[in-house]
Amino acid sequence: MRTLVSELAGKVGETATLCGWVHRIRDLGGVSFVLLRDRTGTVQLVFDAKPDVTLETVITVEGLIAANEKAPAGIEMRVQKLAIIASAAADLPFPVNQDPGKTSLESILDNRMISLRNPSILSIFRVQSTILRCFAEHLRKEGFTEIKTSKLIGTGTEGGTGLFAVDYFDTRVYLTQSPQIYKQALIASGLERVFEIGPAYRAEKHDTPRHINEFVSLDVEMAFIENEQELMDLEVGILAAIFKGVKDANQRDLDAWKASVPAPELCAKIPRVSHDEAKEIVGKVTGKKVYEITPEGERMLCEWAMKTAGIEAAFVYAYPRKSRPFYTFPAENNRTRSFDLLFRGLEVTSGSIRINRYDMMMENLHAFDLDPEGLTDYLSIFKYGCPPHGGFAIGMERLTQKILDLASVKEAALFPRDRKRTRP
Amino acid sequence: MRTLVSELAGKVGETATLCGWVHRIRDLGGVSFVLLRDRTGTVQLVFDAKPDVTLETVITVEGLIAANEKAPAGIEMRVQKLAIIASAAADLPFPVNQDPGKTSLESILDNRMISLRNPSILSIFRVQSTILRCFAEHLRKEGFTEIKTSKLIGTGTEGGTGLFAVDYFDTRVYLTQSPQIYKQALIASGLERVFEIGPAYRAEKHDTPRHINEFVSLDVEMAFIENEQELMDLEVGILAAIFKGVKDANQRDLDAWKASVPAPELCAKIPRVSHDEAKEIVGKVTGKKVYEITPEGERMLCEWAMKTAGIEAAFVYAYPRKSRPFYTFPAENNRTRSFDLLFRGLEVTSGSIRINRYDMMMENLHAFDLDPEGLTDYLSIFKYGCPPHGGFAIGMERLTQKILDLASVKEAALFPRDRKRTRP
Repeated sequence: MRTLVSELAGKVGETATLCGWVHRIRDLGGVSFVLLRDRTGTVQLVFDAKPDVTLETVITVEGLIAANEKAPAGIEMRVQKLAIIASAAADLPFPVNQDPGKTSLESILDNRMISLRNPSILSIFRVQSTILRCFAEHLRKEGFTEIKTSKLIGTGTEGGTGLFAVDYFDTRVYLTQSPQIYKQALIASGLERVFEIGPAYRAEKHDTPRHINEFVSLDVEMAFIENEQELMDLEVGILAAIFKGVKDANQRDLDAWKASVPAPELCAKIPRVSHDEAKEIVGKVTGKKVYEITPEGERMLCEWAMKTAGIEAAFVYAYPRKSRPFYTFPAENNRTRSFDLLFRGLEVTSGSIRINRYDMMMENLHAFDLDPEGLTDYLSIFKYGCPPHGGFAIGMERLTQKILDLASVKEAALFPRDRKRTRP
Repeated sequence: MRTLVSELAGKVGETATLCGWVHRIRDLGGVSFVLLRDRTGTVQLVFDAKPDVTLETVITVEGLIAANEKAPAGIEMRVQKLAIIASAAADLPFPVNQDPGKTSLESILDNRMISLRNPSILSIFRVQSTILRCFAEHLRKEGFTEIKTSKLIGTGTEGGTGLFAVDYFDTRVYLTQSPQIYKQALIASGLERVFEIGPAYRAEKHDTPRHINEFVSLDVEMAFIENEQELMDLEVGILAAIFKGVKDANQRDLDAWKASVPAPELCAKIPRVSHDEAKEIVGKVTGKKVYEITPEGERMLCEWAMKTAGIEAAFVYAYPRKSRPFYTFPAENNRTRSFDLLFRGLEVTSGSIRINRYDMMMENLHAFDLDPEGLTDYLSIFKYGCPPHGGFAIGMERLTQKILDLASVKEAALFPRDRKRTRP
C-alpha cells in the first residue's frame, strides 16, 4: 500500500512504502541521503550505504518514518527495502533538481520532456489546472453551458490573413483563430450563455515573450445584455474566482515562483477607463502626446491602477473602430463597444458587444470592405433573430504567465509552438 | 428586470418581463397564442390581437402571469407590452419548432446555424456540457491534474497514416490523433495523474454513423498502477459520475430523446471479458466461428451484457498485439494489456497499460518495424525513469450519441467534420 509524501506527517514511528523519482543524492560515506519526489512533494530517505541509483530513477522504498528536525519538513524515512522500478540513464539532458532560473528558455523548451520534471517548472501547470477549473466552475454557476466547436473552418471570420492552412482530403481548410462565429451561433440558438476552452491559432510571425502561435482560449459569450460593463462585471467574477482558487489550491506553486495573486475582493476595484482616458494617463506619465497604447503604455496603465486601486489591472474600453474586428458593435465618434483587460502590464483579455442586427452587420461588412459571399452561414445567425450579446476571450497562457510573473508566455505552455518550434 | 421561463411558477398573479424567441404562433382570430422560448424552456403568451412577428424573432414582453390548466405547464402570460428586439426573416431555412426526426441528417447539418435552435437538437449539447463537467470533476476528485497540450506535431506517434498536414510557416506539421505522447510525458514528469479534454483528428475516409474526422477526446493517463483492471475501475467511476450527473441535471433533455442513462450503481457490474471470451460469446449468438469482433459483434456483446448484468456495456480486454499501437504493453500469447469499453453496441473507449521501460520500448519499435530516429523526444520519457502507467480515451461525441440513442455520431458534434463536410 503506497503512501504519498504529503501523507507522511501523521506516520512518524510507522513503517511505510513510498514510490517516486530520485530527485537528489548526497553521499556522506557512512550514510547516504536521497531526496524522493512524488506528485505531492519531496522527502529525505536515509540509506546506510550509497544506493545504486541514478538521478530520476523510479524507485519504491519501504522503511521507518522518523522525525528529524534537520530533514526538510522535519521528517525522513530510514530505508529498509529498495526496489528499482525503472532506471534512468546517467546522461540526464536537463538539471531537473536545479533552479530553472539558471537555465536558458531555449534549453528548457528543447528538453521539454525532461525539463517538465523540474518541480518549479511543473508547478506552473498545477496553477494552470486550477485556472481551468475555476473558469469553468464560475461560469457554470452563472448559468453558462460548455461548448466544443470545430477548430477547422472553410474561411476566416477575422480576415483571411494569419491563418494556418490544412490539407483536408481534396480541399483546404484553416485552423480557427477563435470560436467567434460558433459562440455567436450558440448564444443565438437559445443557450444564451456559453463558454469554450479550446486551442486557437494565429499564423503571425511574432517573436516576442508575449506571443505564441497556438494558445488556449478561454472564451465566453452572453446574450441579453445591455452593455460592455456587464461583460467586465462577469470577468471580474471570473478573475476573483481564479485568484481565490489559486490561492487556496496552489500556495506551494506560488511560493516556487515567489508569486502572489491579487486579493480576490480587489477585482471589483479594477479601474475602467476609456481608450481616450488611458492615452491621457499614459501621456501624463511619459510627458508626451500618446497616439496609441503600446506594450510599454499597457505596463504604465497597470502601474497607475496599482497606485489608484491597489490592483495591477485595468479595463480599457471604447477602442477605435479601425483596431477592432468587423463584428464589434460600433459606438459614436468612430469608437466601439469593446474592451481589453490589462493585467500586470499585459493584455490578457479582449472583448466587446457584438453586432446582433442583420442590417447593421451588412453595413459594417461594407465599411470593412468584406464580401458577404463567403459569410452566408455566419450571416444566417443574424438574419433569423439574434439577441443583443457580447463576449470575450482570456488567453490561458498569458494569464498563467502573469499570475506567476514568468518572463515569457512560452513558459506557460506545456508544448509551445512558435515560428521555429514544432517539437517536442 | 428579466424573468426566466423557469422562474414563472411562483409568480402567478404578478407582472413580469420575459425575453426570448418566437417559437410558435397560433392565431385564433380574437386571440393569438405565441410560444416564447428562452434558455430555460417555453411558455405561452396570450395576445388580444395577432402580433406582427415572425418565427424566431427575438422579443421582450411584459404582462400578467396567470394560471391556465390548458396552457403548457399550466401557466401563461397575458401580454400587455411587446417590443421587438431583433426580427427574423420569414424564409426560415429549417423547421425550428418541429420534431427533428422528420428532417434528414443532411438538412440538419447543412442548416446547422439554425437547426441548433430546435429544442431537441439543442438538448444534445446540454447533455454534452454535463458530460464534460462530470468527467473533469470526477478526475480532479481522484487527484488528477488537467493539462492542455499542443495539437500540432512534427511526426505521428501512431504511424504516419491518417494524419492531416498543416502548412506551418516554412515547414509542415500534423494535427494530433491523440495527446498520447504528451500524456505519457506528463505522468513521467511527476504529475502522475493527468487528464485532457481536447480535439483529436483522424484523416480516415470512413463514412459511417460511427465516425467523424474531428472529435473531442476525453483523455486519461495514470502512473503507479499494476494492471489494466485499475484503469477499468477508474472508468467505472467516471461513467457512474457522468450517468448520475446527466440524470440529475438533464432529465428534460433525456425526455426530449426518450432516452435514459443506466443506473450509476450498475456501472460496477459491467462485465469484463477477454477478447477470446468475447469471441466465444458472439460465436454462441451467431452459431458461427468468430475471427474478429465486428461492429455487429460489439452490439451482440452489449445485448449479452444487458441480459447478464443489467447494463448494456462490456469491457473487452487482452486484444491481440497486431490490433493495438506499438506503445501497448505486451502480454503472453501475442496478447496485450489493453481494453475497450463497448456501450450500447459501440466502442466508446480504448485504453491500455503502456510500455514504460526503455529496453522494452526499443524492442517493440523493432517488432513494429518503426524507426526510433524520429521518436527521440518520445523515447527520452522512458530513458530517464518512467513509472508503470496506463490510460484511456473516451470519445465525447460517441458517449453523447449512445446516452441519447442518436442515429449518428454526427448529431452529437456541434459542427461535425466529415470527409465532405467542412462548414458551417
